[in-house]
Amino acid sequence: MHADILVLPGDGIGPEVTAAAVAVLRTVAARYGHRFSFTEKLIGGAAIDASGEPLPPDTLAAASNADAILLGAVGGPKWSDPKAQVRPEQGLLALRKALGLYANLRPVKPHAAALGASPIKPHLLQGVDLVVVRELTGGIYFGQKQRSADVASDLCEYSVGEIRRVVRHACRLALQRSGRVTSVDKANVLETSRLWREVATQVARDEFPDVTLEHQLVDSMAMHLLARPRAFDVIVTENMFGDILTDEASMLAGSLGLLPSASLGSSGALTHCPIDSACAAGRPAMDGRAGVSASPHSGAKDGGERVMGLYEPIHGSAPDIAGQGIANPYATILSAALLLRHSLGLEAEARCIEQAVSAALDAGHLTADLAAGGPAIGTQAATAAVIAQLQLPCQVAELRD
Amino acid sequence: MHADILVLPGDGIGPEVTAAAVAVLRTVAARYGHRFSFTEKLIGGAAIDASGEPLPPDTLAAASNADAILLGAVGGPKWSDPKAQVRPEQGLLALRKALGLYANLRPVKPHAAALGASPIKPHLLQGVDLVVVRELTGGIYFGQKQRSADVASDLCEYSVGEIRRVVRHACRLALQRSGRVTSVDKANVLETSRLWREVATQVARDEFPDVTLEHQLVDSMAMHLLARPRAFDVIVTENMFGDILTDEASMLAGSLGLLPSASLGSSGALTHCPIDSACAAGRPAMDGRAGVSASPHSGAKDGGERVMGLYEPIHGSAPDIAGQGIANPYATILSAALLLRHSLGLEAEARCIEQAVSAALDAGHLTADLAAGGPAIGTQAATAAVIAQLQLPCQVAELRD
Ligand SMILES: CC(C)[C@H](C(=O)O)[C@@H](O)C(=O)O
Ligand SMILES: CC(C)[C@H](C(=O)O)[C@@H](O)C(=O)O
Repeated sequence: MHADILVLPGDGIGPEVTAAAVAVLRTVAARYGHRFSFTEKLIGGAAIDASGEPLPPDTLAAASNADAILLGAVGGPKWSDPKAQVRPEQGLLALRKALGLYANLRPVKPHAAALGASPIKPHLLQGVDLVVVRELTGGIYFGQKQRSADVASDLCEYSVGEIRRVVRHACRLALQRSGRVTSVDKANVLETSRLWREVATQVARDEFPDVTLEHQLVDSMAMHLLARPRAFDVIVTENMFGDILTDEASMLAGSLGLLPSASLGSSGALTHCPIDSACAAGRPAMDGRAGVSASPHSGAKDGGERVMGLYEPIHGSAPDIAGQGIANPYATILSAALLLRHSLGLEAEARCIEQAVSAALDAGHLTADLAAGGPAIGTQAATAAVIAQLQLPCQVAELRD
Repeated sequence: MHADILVLPGDGIGPEVTAAAVAVLRTVAARYGHRFSFTEKLIGGAAIDASGEPLPPDTLAAASNADAILLGAVGGPKWSDPKAQVRPEQGLLALRKALGLYANLRPVKPHAAALGASPIKPHLLQGVDLVVVRELTGGIYFGQKQRSADVASDLCEYSVGEIRRVVRHACRLALQRSGRVTSVDKANVLETSRLWREVATQVARDEFPDVTLEHQLVDSMAMHLLARPRAFDVIVTENMFGDILTDEASMLAGSLGLLPSASLGSSGALTHCPIDSACAAGRPAMDGRAGVSASPHSGAKDGGERVMGLYEPIHGSAPDIAGQGIANPYATILSAALLLRHSLGLEAEARCIEQAVSAALDAGHLTADLAAGGPAIGTQAATAAVIAQLQLPCQVAELRD
């Protein structure tokens, strides 16, 4: 297949880790007969430096036209004066919003080789396999902000439609897994959370009779996630809570440096539908195909509604280690696997990358964040280890052919 | 000394754990020659059942007049229909607001006997000794809430004065400890967090030259708290972030059932003072006396500004185990120690209680939440173990006399 992939390296270690993932994607293309073309554009601090804007118009245009987007990370001390008028993060937030990337999938499945790096006791981690579905285009991130000399404010707002589509996404995903969804809110205090809980309850009851839905308060969840991580499968929550809980959950996996993410959305408009109206469930805007292997190319320019996908590691730009060649590239490489799965429908190739990363970790190719003080390798050596694994036969791909 | 203590048992296990703490306070009074009188009032679900209101006027009046308040917990499934007009939590929130209890201190110091119950690897916990100072009367908890058929919203608002007083409190506390303060915000996204960061920076620079202030983003902090808990001493943050991070931090201590809290404030009005004005630091509304032993009775009715204090375990009402006599009373007993320290200036007695709880834990008196599957004792046996320890000589108190 042919696909246009937009690469947005961003700031700090962003260029290093995206280069690693592109090298892996080129290897996959060569080995399995695909043609991926890569275009690079600026975002974040790098874009501010070049043009004054964190999301220049040509970056947004390229993003809208690409089959999928691979992003590094944005931000850094250079641009973080609290009084600055433009900030790198605005570029990423504006891109998520403009492309309607409302469902941010953050899978957490601890790898044996990384148990040493996790602060959590190993016996609690056995069998942990969860996905956080974080709402990504609403809530306090995008509500009105105000500032006077004496007072600042941020508005947290959610509509029924915004909640419904992301809960549906989580429920569809759950049907491909264990069928369990944990919805996280703060319904004992927040009005938005009460609406969230009502809508989640309604969606599960009316549209997903086979899904078991439970509710957790965000404060308890911050505890349960550590005390009994195996108890969770699909976790769905609003933007801010998802931001905090996924960084916390990353500690289950030992390092942020192992966690990829997929931000999915659709170019279709959000249908307006009050909670108590009888409006139909309608055609799902997305098919939540995570884990399904035989799905067609979802970014297809076939005149239908387009599924958009942006893929990025959940770690930040790590300015303290930028340019030293020591950043862990695995999370970005695993994000490239999610790109193949969710945007290009190449499930087998995605699994081959995931197996190659696992094998590299098993073989002890550990970057500093994973080595727990032991000998560590750099970005290029880790990337080379994955590429070497990809040269070996990959059972999943062979099976398909 | 004589002190009027208001007891608000609340819901679920609240009555069981406050009864335990009252028994301990009576023991301390008898042994060290104090006269504590206890009045009990309703709050939360119990108050809704009795009067339709979660904070009845006579409860509020009693709270305003008491020297200190000991609270159990509020809430439970009986009252948590998302469409309910009154909720138990409103009672607690209204009380915090009415009494101006803006600084919620949540100390976390893992006890050796509880390391088995913690999901965190034991070597990371050695030497952990931190206090979260959570802002408790502002932010998204108290901003305007709106709801229409299609949209809900919560406003997060902070003024310079609100931020300043709680940061000052944290800095004063730090001066009695290691001198380090970590301020947690989400300044790369939220306007309130940018104001928070500016004010925190200004307060530390202008008023506390001996305090070392660092800033962390809340998502990173959720990680660092687990990966390197020893690195933190005093952590100051806004209401919602504090709610989440302290429940997370409770896992360092093995169980929520060991964590007390003090909610401190002052009857004085908040002075209005824009960030860029040259208004003086002024007389601190509170002296942040945690850890100082020779301080006077702060609840004194001496005509000066009154320091208010409410003490409660950070756990909830645990309706699933209510009435079974198995709830862990240690967090509430330790909250009573904080009451003696912060509201009554009885530092020595506070330490004697803390030592008695430690000794009871050392001797293996573990409730189910701490026993990690081993044999467990109930609420009364745990309370009796603490009281038995309090009959023995307590070095701290002997030293003082
Ligand atoms: C960089 C920042 C704006 C972003 C967020 O808060 O969403 C990041 O923390 C993330 O989780 O993707
Ligand atoms: C009961 C609830 C309103 C409360 C809060 O969120 O503040 C509780 O979780 C706490 O932490 O004291």
